[in-house]
Amino acid sequence: MRSWELSLALDRKSHRPLPQQLVLALVEEIRRGRLEPGEPVPGTRSLARTLGVHRNTVVAAFEELLAQGWLETTRASHTRVTRSLPVADDPSAHTRSRAMGFALRPWGNSARAFEAVPAGVLDFTGGLPDARLFRADLLARAYRRSLKRSKGKLLGFGSPAGDLRLRERLAAMLAARRGLAVTAEDLLVTRGSQLALHLLSLALVREGDTVAVESPGYPSAREAFCLLGAKLLPIKVDGEGLDVEQLERALERTTIRALCLTPHHQDPTTVTLSARRRLALLSLARRHRFAIIEADYDYEFQFDGAPVLPMASTDPHGVVVYVGTLSKALAPGLRMGFVIAPPPLRAALIAVRGQVDRQGDLGLEHAVAELLEDGEVLRHSLRARRIFHARRDLLVRLLRTHLNDALSFEVPRGGLALWARVAKGIDVERWAAASLRAGVRFFTGRQYAPSGRPLPFVRLGFGHLDEPELREAVRRMAKALPAR
Amino acid sequence: MRSWELSLALDRKSHRPLPQQLVLALVEEIRRGRLEPGEPVPGTRSLARTLGVHRNTVVAAFEELLAQGWLETTRASHTRVTRSLPVADDPSAHTRSRAMGFALRPWGNSARAFEAVPAGVLDFTGGLPDARLFRADLLARAYRRSLKRSKGKLLGFGSPAGDLRLRERLAAMLAARRGLAVTAEDLLVTRGSQLALHLLSLALVREGDTVAVESPGYPSAREAFCLLGAKLLPIKVDGEGLDVEQLERALERTTIRALCLTPHHQDPTTVTLSARRRLALLSLARRHRFAIIEADYDYEFQFDGAPVLPMASTDPHGVVVYVGTLSKALAPGLRMGFVIAPPPLRAALIAVRGQVDRQGDLGLEHAVAELLEDGEVLRHSLRARRIFHARRDLLVRLLRTHLNDALSFEVPRGGLALWARVAKGIDVERWAAASLRAGVRFFTGRQYAPSGRPLPFVRLGFGHLDEPELREAVRRMAKALPAR
Repeated sequence: MRSWELSLALDRKSHRPLPQQLVLALVEEIRRGRLEPGEPVPGTRSLARTLGVHRNTVVAAFEELLAQGWLETTRASHTRVTRSLPVADDPSAHTRSRAMGFALRPWGNSARAFEAVPAGVLDFTGGLPDARLFRADLLARAYRRSLKRSKGKLLGFGSPAGDLRLRERLAAMLAARRGLAVTAEDLLVTRGSQLALHLLSLALVREGDTVAVESPGYPSAREAFCLLGAKLLPIKVDGEGLDVEQLERALERTTIRALCLTPHHQDPTTVTLSARRRLALLSLARRHRFAIIEADYDYEFQFDGAPVLPMASTDPHGVVVYVGTLSKALAPGLRMGFVIAPPPLRAALIAVRGQVDRQGDLGLEHAVAELLEDGEVLRHSLRARRIFHARRDLLVRLLRTHLNDALSFEVPRGGLALWARVAKGIDVERWAAASLRAGVRFFTGRQYAPSGRPLPFVRLGFGHLDEPELREAVRRMAKALPAR
Repeated sequence: MRSWELSLALDRKSHRPLPQQLVLALVEEIRRGRLEPGEPVPGTRSLARTLGVHRNTVVAAFEELLAQGWLETTRASHTRVTRSLPVADDPSAHTRSRAMGFALRPWGNSARAFEAVPAGVLDFTGGLPDARLFRADLLARAYRRSLKRSKGKLLGFGSPAGDLRLRERLAAMLAARRGLAVTAEDLLVTRGSQLALHLLSLALVREGDTVAVESPGYPSAREAFCLLGAKLLPIKVDGEGLDVEQLERALERTTIRALCLTPHHQDPTTVTLSARRRLALLSLARRHRFAIIEADYDYEFQFDGAPVLPMASTDPHGVVVYVGTLSKALAPGLRMGFVIAPPPLRAALIAVRGQVDRQGDLGLEHAVAELLEDGEVLRHSLRARRIFHARRDLLVRLLRTHLNDALSFEVPRGGLALWARVAKGIDVERWAAASLRAGVRFFTGRQYAPSGRPLPFVRLGFGHLDEPELREAVRRMAKALPAR
């Protein structure tokens, strides 16, 4: 028997009992091939002496190793490393390889990088609200109260459809403010609108199916469908919103499973789908049996005129699926969204949700329900709307003062971003790159084009920037403007 | 012009300004077909008089309706409902249909019902920890602190890989306690192990691919793969765990993308995969280039002997993907899981995660990191292990006393459930149904069989039942035992 000069360093201060430490150390020796199958191991007495531990420690460890199958007893009652253990493939190999011994699915495994904004850079991307305005303390307090009152229930399993109280509050809010005659039983709570779109893809789309999307349009919606292997049918957006006539012509030769659109504050152009097209679209969906996925992501933030009621408020054919979110009304990191779908689809979405992540965070859902109930969500969104309205007006003034020759735009009647055409002769991609170096980031039209080709537009999300930040951001953009 | 006896009830107490209310009411009339395309509308003066509002209110509403395209101005400067609006399809239809005007994808839209346990029923299903033991107050406090310190950052967008602090703490815990030499850069935080399995399906599997699973095995894992259209290859489990020889034979004629298994406390049988088979499996995966998805769902709860180190702790070929969770160590409703994967797969999982739900709840992730950091997670799991150990021993005694003729089992060395064979002549499905009527619920072998066929076993999850509950549950089971 070779001498047992093995690395069996036992740690007496560890939480782990000594016999367990010994088990783990011996297994490691066998796995690494330093103890080979069939190799006899020392007697318990001699090993205990070598290690300076009580013999019972070694006996307990050996019993465990025998039970787990690493050691076996010979007929002569000796103990050895189990003879039938396969020999380690490569004893010199590292414990964990950095390489990968299998293949990925061929698509859907890359996405736009979610890059953190470099420190000091002012960020126009995203059309986000200002998380600094949100009363996080009220949320935290509501969360604590919810957990306390539930006595552990909200930390257990519940319905994948979401916390009942939250669904009731959302339904009441949607009925009162968006003309949606719904109850808690029509709703499914999701983690932001992104999970809603993902669940809809899972319930509606299989590889090779076609989904119509807006062009330019919201990249994350495209990604949600492409992840399931869908083909995209881009339909162009003009001053009236989605070009329904173009869709109608395309439907003569193509079958689509769904159309995903943003009829209110179209993302990115901020235009509202015209009345005529809304009605035409409902008929078209009925005739061609596709789902209209109405992503209504910032209904709350209408500054001029009345918000247009969602298409889902009048859906006589059961073709509209309504996707909403509190990300804009409260905070994007809260990941609270919801779907309203015809009953068979809703049942499918709940089943699918259970298979994706089982359920949302019921404690936080319950806490948000409380904020809805006591009026805090409404108060917050009215307060935020005033602030965002002022920010929009300031941004418009700043752009007219400092970038009047470079940008032309319609003042957005609502929403948290401004879509501006870049004047001829300005290379928008170069401008964006120079701006980033000058400390301001924005997305160009290219990010919204399904083709990925450059478009002479910029989108400036202003909701999360306060007045000094807006001034400085526009100043930096102007400074970075390439010479023509 | 017909008389305007329309249901334009305006509410002066509403948050919504009167012109907006008027806009919404008129749009609703047009949508329902009560105002038809081309129909002239009354003058602003006369409508104001009829409604008892200031004329400016009506003027503002009409301007909005003209802007949205519901009204248009004729050459003679009269105002009418836009002539080109499509006629409403069915004016008598309800505002929202309950039917559905499109089709679902043909599979994956049904699942085991997540039925709430009826009140008063003691529940042996699930193998869950006891959420009542968890210090929810500490979590709520840590959450409040995290939000407060982050000044809004944790309520904004972050990395889809999860909060950095949580990844660091998890990596340290896994290195210290599970022999996994990992850092924060190797980890991806998920919403429980279910989302981990879903993301893995998305990154690895396409419709028609084959995934090997344990038989009997964890139903939710099967569902995660089937949702993506995978075919299952069930491999039987015996007293040594997964039958690797059977898998090896199957691989002679089948290609698999992945094998999903629970080597530690196999779910449902609680057996541990033998040393010999672990090593054989690593070689097999290397040769056939498939991923071994090691779902290690309750490593913490080992009662007898040492826990066996994860297969991922020695993975020289980059074939093991490790899925862990804090659902068992803390609370299932927290939905905190994690994946360790070779770098190319991890990058793919992060991309996919961004497309599924963007990111987890960073505030809660940060709070759990704090609980890990100050030792609360470790303290809690040691405390819980003692309690669960005692509950296991009590359940064993109760079963031997009250159901000794009906059930035979090995005492599980770890985990939160006991797997028992039902004696010949007892119809286990009838017993389960009678038990539910008697106020105790448990799963039978059938729930774990990929074929869905009955198996003469019951699985009794004991972690979440305290001593009086365990006594009463076994009493009810014994009472419900069908006569043989």
